Amino acid sequence: MSEMLEVPKLSFAGKVARLGTRLKDPQWRRYGLQLAAGKFLGLALLMAIVVLCSVGPSVLFGTPAHAQQAAAVPSTAPSMVMTADLTDIAKNPVINPLNTLWTLLGAFLVFGMQAGFTMLEAGFCRSRETVNVLVECVFDTCLCGILYWAWGYAFMFGAGNGFIGWHDPNSADTNWFFLQGITAMTLYGATGVPVLAHWLFQFAFADCASTICSGTMIGRTAFWGDILYSVCVSGFIYPIIGHWAWGPDGFLVTMGSPDHFLSGLGMFFHDFAGSTVVHSIGGWIALAGGIILGPRLGRKFKRDGGGPMLPHDLTIAVVGGLILWFGWYGFNPGSTLSAMDMGGIARVAANTTLASCAGGLVAVFIGYGMNKKWDAGFITNGFLAGLVAITASCYWVSPFGSVMLGGIGGALVILATEVLEYFRIDDPVGAWPVHGVNGIWGTLSIGFFASGEYNIAGSSNTGTPIVAAGEGLKGLFYGGGMQVLKAQCVGSLIVCAATFIIALIMFKVIDVVGLLRISREGEIEGMDLHEHGISAYPEYVIAASFAPAGMKPESVNVPAGSPMAVPAAAH
Amino acid sequence: MSEMLEVPKLSFAGKVARLGTRLKDPQWRRYGLQLAAGKFLGLALLMAIVVLCSVGPSVLFGTPAHAQQAAAVPSTAPSMVMTADLTDIAKNPVINPLNTLWTLLGAFLVFGMQAGFTMLEAGFCRSRETVNVLVECVFDTCLCGILYWAWGYAFMFGAGNGFIGWHDPNSADTNWFFLQGITAMTLYGATGVPVLAHWLFQFAFADCASTICSGTMIGRTAFWGDILYSVCVSGFIYPIIGHWAWGPDGFLVTMGSPDHFLSGLGMFFHDFAGSTVVHSIGGWIALAGGIILGPRLGRKFKRDGGGPMLPHDLTIAVVGGLILWFGWYGFNPGSTLSAMDMGGIARVAANTTLASCAGGLVAVFIGYGMNKKWDAGFITNGFLAGLVAITASCYWVSPFGSVMLGGIGGALVILATEVLEYFRIDDPVGAWPVHGVNGIWGTLSIGFFASGEYNIAGSSNTGTPIVAAGEGLKGLFYGGGMQVLKAQCVGSLIVCAATFIIALIMFKVIDVVGLLRISREGEIEGMDLHEHGISAYPEYVIAASFAPAGMKPESVNVPAGSPMAVPAAAH
Amino acid sequence: MSEMLEVPKLSFAGKVARLGTRLKDPQWRRYGLQLAAGKFLGLALLMAIVVLCSVGPSVLFGTPAHAQQAAAVPSTAPSMVMTADLTDIAKNPVINPLNTLWTLLGAFLVFGMQAGFTMLEAGFCRSRETVNVLVECVFDTCLCGILYWAWGYAFMFGAGNGFIGWHDPNSADTNWFFLQGITAMTLYGATGVPVLAHWLFQFAFADCASTICSGTMIGRTAFWGDILYSVCVSGFIYPIIGHWAWGPDGFLVTMGSPDHFLSGLGMFFHDFAGSTVVHSIGGWIALAGGIILGPRLGRKFKRDGGGPMLPHDLTIAVVGGLILWFGWYGFNPGSTLSAMDMGGIARVAANTTLASCAGGLVAVFIGYGMNKKWDAGFITNGFLAGLVAITASCYWVSPFGSVMLGGIGGALVILATEVLEYFRIDDPVGAWPVHGVNGIWGTLSIGFFASGEYNIAGSSNTGTPIVAAGEGLKGLFYGGGMQVLKAQCVGSLIVCAATFIIALIMFKVIDVVGLLRISREGEIEGMDLHEHGISAYPEYVIAASFAPAGMKPESVNVPAGSPMAVPAAAH
Repeated sequence: MSEMLEVPKLSFAGKVARLGTRLKDPQWRRYGLQLAAGKFLGLALLMAIVVLCSVGPSVLFGTPAHAQQAAAVPSTAPSMVMTADLTDIAKNPVINPLNTLWTLLGAFLVFGMQAGFTMLEAGFCRSRETVNVLVECVFDTCLCGILYWAWGYAFMFGAGNGFIGWHDPNSADTNWFFLQGITAMTLYGATGVPVLAHWLFQFAFADCASTICSGTMIGRTAFWGDILYSVCVSGFIYPIIGHWAWGPDGFLVTMGSPDHFLSGLGMFFHDFAGSTVVHSIGGWIALAGGIILGPRLGRKFKRDGGGPMLPHDLTIAVVGGLILWFGWYGFNPGSTLSAMDMGGIARVAANTTLASCAGGLVAVFIGYGMNKKWDAGFITNGFLAGLVAITASCYWVSPFGSVMLGGIGGALVILATEVLEYFRIDDPVGAWPVHGVNGIWGTLSIGFFASGEYNIAGSSNTGTPIVAAGEGLKGLFYGGGMQVLKAQCVGSLIVCAATFIIALIMFKVIDVVGLLRISREGEIEGMDLHEHGISAYPEYVIAASFAPAGMKPESVNVPAGSPMAVPAAAH
Repeated sequence: MSEMLEVPKLSFAGKVARLGTRLKDPQWRRYGLQLAAGKFLGLALLMAIVVLCSVGPSVLFGTPAHAQQAAAVPSTAPSMVMTADLTDIAKNPVINPLNTLWTLLGAFLVFGMQAGFTMLEAGFCRSRETVNVLVECVFDTCLCGILYWAWGYAFMFGAGNGFIGWHDPNSADTNWFFLQGITAMTLYGATGVPVLAHWLFQFAFADCASTICSGTMIGRTAFWGDILYSVCVSGFIYPIIGHWAWGPDGFLVTMGSPDHFLSGLGMFFHDFAGSTVVHSIGGWIALAGGIILGPRLGRKFKRDGGGPMLPHDLTIAVVGGLILWFGWYGFNPGSTLSAMDMGGIARVAANTTLASCAGGLVAVFIGYGMNKKWDAGFITNGFLAGLVAITASCYWVSPFGSVMLGGIGGALVILATEVLEYFRIDDPVGAWPVHGVNGIWGTLSIGFFASGEYNIAGSSNTGTPIVAAGEGLKGLFYGGGMQVLKAQCVGSLIVCAATFIIALIMFKVIDVVGLLRISREGEIEGMDLHEHGISAYPEYVIAASFAPAGMKPESVNVPAGSPMAVPAAAH
Repeated sequence: MSEMLEVPKLSFAGKVARLGTRLKDPQWRRYGLQLAAGKFLGLALLMAIVVLCSVGPSVLFGTPAHAQQAAAVPSTAPSMVMTADLTDIAKNPVINPLNTLWTLLGAFLVFGMQAGFTMLEAGFCRSRETVNVLVECVFDTCLCGILYWAWGYAFMFGAGNGFIGWHDPNSADTNWFFLQGITAMTLYGATGVPVLAHWLFQFAFADCASTICSGTMIGRTAFWGDILYSVCVSGFIYPIIGHWAWGPDGFLVTMGSPDHFLSGLGMFFHDFAGSTVVHSIGGWIALAGGIILGPRLGRKFKRDGGGPMLPHDLTIAVVGGLILWFGWYGFNPGSTLSAMDMGGIARVAANTTLASCAGGLVAVFIGYGMNKKWDAGFITNGFLAGLVAITASCYWVSPFGSVMLGGIGGALVILATEVLEYFRIDDPVGAWPVHGVNGIWGTLSIGFFASGEYNIAGSSNTGTPIVAAGEGLKGLFYGGGMQVLKAQCVGSLIVCAATFIIALIMFKVIDVVGLLRISREGEIEGMDLHEHGISAYPEYVIAASFAPAGMKPESVNVPAGSPMAVPAAAH
């Protein structure tokens, strides 16, 4: 809100207006895409250089910019009321139950996002692939629950080393596979919250990451392929890479402290509620899947005179988006794991709202500038982009910063959609623009917008803040220099690059064994009839023009081969 | 439940039965409408007289009926446990976090109502105007968030004068525009809840008011018109008029106390959770919009041999209604801003439920009496009417009173729908019958049904109750005389009249500059194709008979001109 | 997780695989059904024998296995922190508000399940009977609220005798009809929660039971019949039978203690959140209704060469299932009525999730084994079966036990669906397989899987645990012998048998007076047009092939006779 910031604000608005005008001109559009591609390349290079520069001195000298090793701060300690009695559980026996209630409420809301994801994906796809979306989303949830119980949670939140965890942080002899050895008395780290509540909250997060991947892969992924990659994602990629950033001893958590990774950097990686851990991981796996799969049959891209395939039910899609927004109030505020931090939960909730509002408005106005239409898909993906962007930074930025970074998210999602179109990648719901790109932007945004008012460690999903209370996290725009931005670049680059490369290999292997994509015949018949034996709307008459090239028109969408087929439908 | 009340109960049931019989007779129907019009006129006159009578003596003598000036009661003080220690934050550090959690939970649930509103409006409209509903609802939410951050909240809950607010009640130097100067330590008034949590809760309320307006205006409002009136409603009308009733120094809050408005009345205006502030404001703006816009092309009214245009998806509509009911549990119980008032939140939640149930039953039975059909729209608008009616009164009435006043709400919504039909006003979702009419009824119902058992001030959205604890608010039927009813009439009349007149002027101005209604060509083409470039269900074959007069039949609803059009659809 | 349990685990997986293979063979299938029928018969006999064996000694000797009479344990006492100060309300004034907040949050989430039930039922039925589902679900909710206020709650949770309640447990002079005599100060039993909060929570449960019944009866029940049976179910059957298991002095609550029913058994009946009280009661009433009604016109069963009628909107159905799962987080964790039991709420929430995941996976894989299709209906009913199964046992079992018993639930739901098909009973949504059968399985599962780690009494819906804290409830597989299993068999058998017999009589009586089933003409015209005067989707073109036998094809689904018919539709 300071005057210093008024200039970039106006400048940003001006750029948006100019962008709108220019995007209407085909020549400018071509130029813009080249520019964007160049900027993306440059950004990647910058991030790489930042990493190298940071690594260099630290490897050579090992002198941290400032000491970070400090006693753990119980996240049950509120930031506002600081009486010594507070941590005395005998005098305040209600604190842990209150925080447990808050964590569980967060878990419930995040779980509720599954309804939103399912609606969003189902609504944005064609009716012929809708049942596949439905079954896939539910299957993923069920699978993720079992895997997260079996070993996912142990890998991610167990103690171990910087790369993977497996055991109770308080007892090296007790591994957490199958949640064994956990009783009602086992609390997670310093949070005061029972491990089983933390498990539920984190399962809901893992489930989101897993569901995000499926969005890009709609309409052509064989169900056995779905199962295989979901086992890899929910069972290995997400929990192990997640451990790096959120595990009690993950190397991005301990980064910058003496004798750890990049000790010279003097700053660890911040991701409050998962712009990187949940959204970047999900979004970059999605992109890898979309690349290996190739587009759906009949999908023509803009440069080839086509455009995205039409959604089949915008009502379901947009309402799904709103339910996601609703669930985000568990995602971000719940990530304090503590209602005692009442200033924190209020700020996080308000910032989340403002970023979403700004993202939606910016995206719909850009869309109007481009097409003179108020686009339902743009405004929905716009506010979702704002939500993804604020997810990492919600604890440390001001309401003003939230509006700024959410608005930028709304612009990025449209730019990234054009990039996908340019590279002929078919992403039916825009999972990579929303989650992959804005996951990175949200993570980096801390480095720009962290206002310096709030604790470096804050509360966190890990329950293990390693920095003394009182110091504020300060980004570039608030006079904090490059340090935080560097740490964010390092973390985001490592996570995204590792995820993307591993995912490419995984999908290629599944593809080579012939399980990733359904047969051409199956795709022409329709995912739903082929894999699931039924159409989502057996009674509705569907227009033939939405069949992919080479398919016979279907005037009535009756799944004749279905085991559940009603007799009357068979004649 | 006393015997005294058994008589009106039976009498009401009898009247409902008689009404059902009579409404089947066209002559009685015509007579009934004239009667209703007369009664509405009479009621307005009565309210005006009540105001004048109250103003008279107070201006002359300035003697209040009883003194109301008292120390502020912290709403953190529970009504049940009254130990002195309770307000000692050092000894009970959990109270403020608990109340913050409660307020945020309420905010999340009220925000979730956006999904319900969107579904209800989308389901009740025709498929050709569905995308417009979706984009409008999301756009409104985003816009409202930004405006409420920029100045709406400051206007409404900042201190200032009786008509508008702008600054922190605790510091005249700190204005609240753009929420500046608010830290995690800034609490709202005496609530003990951080301002940012209160902001989120109140943003969700403002968003409801804004969305309510749009319901009546479906299907013919140009999107630029939508944007213009939404800026006026969310940015000015709602927060400024809302300040009168809920602001820390609003003139309806201080009404009846010495040296204030109507000091002779000796009673201030009560609106627990917004029957007036949210629902009446929203509903009366909606009516003004519907009047200035005129009906959709092809809409014939009952007296002209027609009837309402059919909804296109009752499943979505009714489920949307249920989601609204779900969200109402944040709306009403959350408005205590305090879970410490455990008796209050339980009572409010139970009363809310009972009024809704009674409203739904009464409406569906009246509908059955009229048409011998169990009408889905009637039962949905019936329970919504019950919910709107209980919103003002839920804190002060008994369960019995809730059933009574909710049931009356269910009858009023049907009567009001007939009134709209008679005056040839096209309200596709019944926003005025549900919110406008029942907003008034719910506000007045306190004057009849307040049972005298609960504190005059109670908890409140303003956080600034100005009456000493212990006194009960008592309505006419419980021996409290006319005093409360008078205060409610004054408040409701002032708010509804001011809102309606301002809204008429606003819409007229937008209409005159040519931005309010889409062109005839656009309406014939269809809102969705014209403004948004896409149909909500591009694949479904839609029956041609639902096109307005003058439109060519469309056998397949393909948006050929859409920028997103699939190539196959272009040939 | 002990080694002893590894063998049954593998064995179960093996059996599932074998089952899949065999179910593909028609001969094995026929054999399997006979086997299943025999096993069901045998199980019923076993339960009867268990009852008789238990009754014998107790009647003869009256010596309980061990004394159970003990002082009430306030459920506000957390299981983890056991300082004496905790129950001192003056020192800890926040405990009751915190528990009230938790109970209300649970109530809100359980109420939210109505949206899920409505979507699930609407999606799984044909479009021609959808409006009926919508109106019925809303009507039931409204009716249930009024009846539960009038006398249902008094019957169920009032004190009285072992069979029915009516008065305040603390005052024999105060009856609870119409919730009279209840103030903000009236707390429910030892819970510390206001009666009005408990009423709301229990209303939401009653409403679920009532809605479950309607699922089986879709598409052929006259609306007056709906009203009549709903009054009986919500007003009498559910609250009175519910009193047996959850009332403060219900005979299944006091069972096994000296001078009470089956004192020789030495163990009372456990149903944590309602596998028996809500789901079995709902499911067995549903079955009785389905039997008396007979199938919908045109429904052919598998043995007659047909199969289930196709759902009309799988998107709505599956999303409805996910919303039910979301609401279950109120259903089960909320049933502690206490957030102070933080270990309990975390465990209950995690167990609920795991059982659901296992149920969904087992069901979808069995379905794939049977049909080589990934069935959307199977996975949805599978996870719902897991949720129903864990409902009774969630407090006392381990995560491992939850996975096991949920998985068994997923298998049972498919087996039970085949049983219905075999007996030619038309259950459009599978209410009996999901709720009736898994209600029993979930209840019995405590007898097998209770791990002995958690308090016999635990927290409970009744608020009146009658066993001293400290003793663990231990089932057969954990070395606890048959005692718990016997008590569960007794309770489940008594409740299911009583419910089923009473419901058969009730439906027969309604049928005999001619109000249960709509006329053949009405059914051919379509439930929605006949009873509600409108189709759910008046604009969509519906394929004629989904009309029942004898109906003329409808190419455009326009409700010509509707009182709301748009003029354009009349030509």
